[in-house]
Amino acid sequence: EVDGRDLDGVFALTRLEVAECIRKACEQGKTAEAVIVGGGFIGLEAAVALADMWGIKVSVVEMLPELLSGALPAGMSRMARHDLGENGVAVYSVEKVLRLEGEAGQVQRVVTDKRTLPAQLVLFAAGFVPSGELARDAGLACTPSGAVLVDEEMRTSDPDIFAGGDCVSVRNLVTGKPGHFPLGSLANRQGRVIGTNLAGGSARFPGAVGSWAVKLFNLSFCGTGLTAEKAAIEGFDALSVGVEQLDRAHFYPEKEMMHLELVVERGSRRVLGAQGCSSLPDAVKARIDAIGAALQLGRPTADDIGNLEVVYSPPFASAMDIVNTVGNVADNALAGRGHGRDATEFMDLWARRGENEVFFVDARPVAGSAELAAAYPGEWHAVPLEETENRIREFPRDRPVALVCNTGLRSYNVQLILARHGITNTVNTYGGMQALMKSGFKS
Amino acid sequence: EVDGRDLDGVFALTRLEVAECIRKACEQGKTAEAVIVGGGFIGLEAAVALADMWGIKVSVVEMLPELLSGALPAGMSRMARHDLGENGVAVYSVEKVLRLEGEAGQVQRVVTDKRTLPAQLVLFAAGFVPSGELARDAGLACTPSGAVLVDEEMRTSDPDIFAGGDCVSVRNLVTGKPGHFPLGSLANRQGRVIGTNLAGGSARFPGAVGSWAVKLFNLSFCGTGLTAEKAAIEGFDALSVGVEQLDRAHFYPEKEMMHLELVVERGSRRVLGAQGCSSLPDAVKARIDAIGAALQLGRPTADDIGNLEVVYSPPFASAMDIVNTVGNVADNALAGRGHGRDATEFMDLWARRGENEVFFVDARPVAGSAELAAAYPGEWHAVPLEETENRIREFPRDRPVALVCNTGLRSYNVQLILARHGITNTVNTYGGMQALMKSGFKS
Repeated sequence: EVDGRDLDGVFALTRLEVAECIRKACEQGKTAEAVIVGGGFIGLEAAVALADMWGIKVSVVEMLPELLSGALPAGMSRMARHDLGENGVAVYSVEKVLRLEGEAGQVQRVVTDKRTLPAQLVLFAAGFVPSGELARDAGLACTPSGAVLVDEEMRTSDPDIFAGGDCVSVRNLVTGKPGHFPLGSLANRQGRVIGTNLAGGSARFPGAVGSWAVKLFNLSFCGTGLTAEKAAIEGFDALSVGVEQLDRAHFYPEKEMMHLELVVERGSRRVLGAQGCSSLPDAVKARIDAIGAALQLGRPTADDIGNLEVVYSPPFASAMDIVNTVGNVADNALAGRGHGRDATEFMDLWARRGENEVFFVDARPVAGSAELAAAYPGEWHAVPLEETENRIREFPRDRPVALVCNTGLRSYNVQLILARHGITNTVNTYGGMQALMKSGFKS
Repeated sequence: EVDGRDLDGVFALTRLEVAECIRKACEQGKTAEAVIVGGGFIGLEAAVALADMWGIKVSVVEMLPELLSGALPAGMSRMARHDLGENGVAVYSVEKVLRLEGEAGQVQRVVTDKRTLPAQLVLFAAGFVPSGELARDAGLACTPSGAVLVDEEMRTSDPDIFAGGDCVSVRNLVTGKPGHFPLGSLANRQGRVIGTNLAGGSARFPGAVGSWAVKLFNLSFCGTGLTAEKAAIEGFDALSVGVEQLDRAHFYPEKEMMHLELVVERGSRRVLGAQGCSSLPDAVKARIDAIGAALQLGRPTADDIGNLEVVYSPPFASAMDIVNTVGNVADNALAGRGHGRDATEFMDLWARRGENEVFFVDARPVAGSAELAAAYPGEWHAVPLEETENRIREFPRDRPVALVCNTGLRSYNVQLILARHGITNTVNTYGGMQALMKSGFKS
């Protein structure tokens, strides 16, 4: 327990009454600075609300290296951090709150292991665990983390007792193992199942895939199933691919660039999860929910996603929608035709270019690449896709080649051309400059 | 062939060059009135474009009783017609074009079997059939309607010839029978499959469920699988249910009322299709694509849709999302707990109230029902849900009772209360006043 948690202005984001106290503290105008402890869904939603609704200077302190850890892959987590930073929310990760300090009983400062942050409001949004005490006291079977075990009828180990909501463990439909999905949406669906069964019916709740959504400032993030990191922990030999593509026909007047990643198992080609972000919440929700429904009803492969039928006309989608493209990019990667990394890995390579041997190639048309090529002569090489064959001798054979273009499509084609010429130590950048910019790339 | 089709200003909506000619005709400002022959996707998209982009007075002439026939259920077709009408597009259905009349070689009038419409531009968007001539001439197997038969590798009856696009017949994944899905989106996915197979790979295109989308003026419509009408033609014993619900949390500032219908088979409880509309294109796309993905990857039941996991947080969905609600309403109907009809059937009953014995009950709070109750004393009975038990004697036992509320939820509860009191000759109105207003209900 952190010292100072009993000071005025310190809350845990748990109950409706707390939300009303927080609102009061903000509306009184005495809160200039706030610290949120925890960079998960609840913490970030609170950060956005405080900054957006009351203009409070917000800092988020997170113990882990990444925001939305477990839900977002590390690369997309960087996009979330950039969106927060662009809108005035400071994020301090790999950092731990040591104590809270106050004056006259009111919190004034948060002391971490790295700095002291002024704050008249501190919200704890971390370390939530299932409230399984009642169940344990009643002798019901629980998971080691304290969640109540239920069967598909939401029945506990005592056949006369049902349980649902954040306190229960249900089957993870991707891994087949017990999972914990503390989401109000699932609690509601479980409530109907329990009600039906209490009334003598026989409804089932087969489990969950873990679909989620969070709206930050400019970007909304959604996901379903596993990230590549989680898939590895679960023992899958998985890879993840990413794309950036317009969310509807390129000739339709209103459109936005969307980011979408797909996690697939090598060998079986099975889809394990997907994550995406966009400035349009409903647009990214649509793609994730389609993949999420596929994960719930079947056992989709990369090919199923490449062919997935989603509604089409220009105001709604592209003829080859981003959901199909990400399936096809997974197919390319599984077949060994394409090999890419996410934008943050390109950023790290570029930042350490003095220490590595990487040869950086920008495959965009000259209009796109000229500025960076001029700024970094001999380092940022502008070779448009169309000139690759003619300029093949400019590509080194003894150094790794990092490829980038606007979205990752042209640079993939360059990768294919280089492979035909025996140059195979290449890595594409999934999502290209579009993903780099969302990740806060400063050249 | 209609007389006068060779006049200037008459086009069939088939090729890019035609689109350019139409744009020229519109931009020159000589086109005050246009007639579109055919109320399918292409015809309606053209109608909206002409009216919206150039302020042209557009009339649509359709031989069949309903617009978007085959794709939309009759009730939702009325919503499409209302949206067009509210925005100045006249629709004439069950009406046939007899001839076109011109002056000095330029079209001036369209003569139908019911009226003469002035028009300086006439677009034919009806009666398209697969272009299978080349395949037939080559001796390839075709369907009776002329579509080229292909297997899952998109191979024709000649193993050295592949085919894809609007000219082919692929498996309908809902019926299991050969289907025809002339959609650019599927053509694109088929192209990749063919390319992979031509290059020695073995990609498959398993078939289609027939997902579609069209944006009109205020409303966008999407669907997947079968309508109730099509299901009946295919031999299914199906029923369809409908709901109106906010597309995200009721406390989130921006939200819209969405309409969603689900078609399910009696007995098996299998989902056969879904159709919806909303003023937000992406929001309705998200729900239909989730159900469409379920139809492609599995064999979902009403229960699967009632439990379907879609991303949740307030800016994206309700905790019990409309997609779950429509699954649960289907469950209620399959179990015999609820019995409803769509808004157009209520409108027809109300319009003929002098000829029938129907007792009309508005279950909204008094604030909602007072106006209509005052306007139609003794005809429009305002009995709020909360007063149903106490006023049970006001409900007749010898006449059918038609129930309506704002969305269909309160009136469903009234239906349950009435049933407990032995009053079972009742019919709920799916979508309630919200659906009635979208359908152009004038009390």
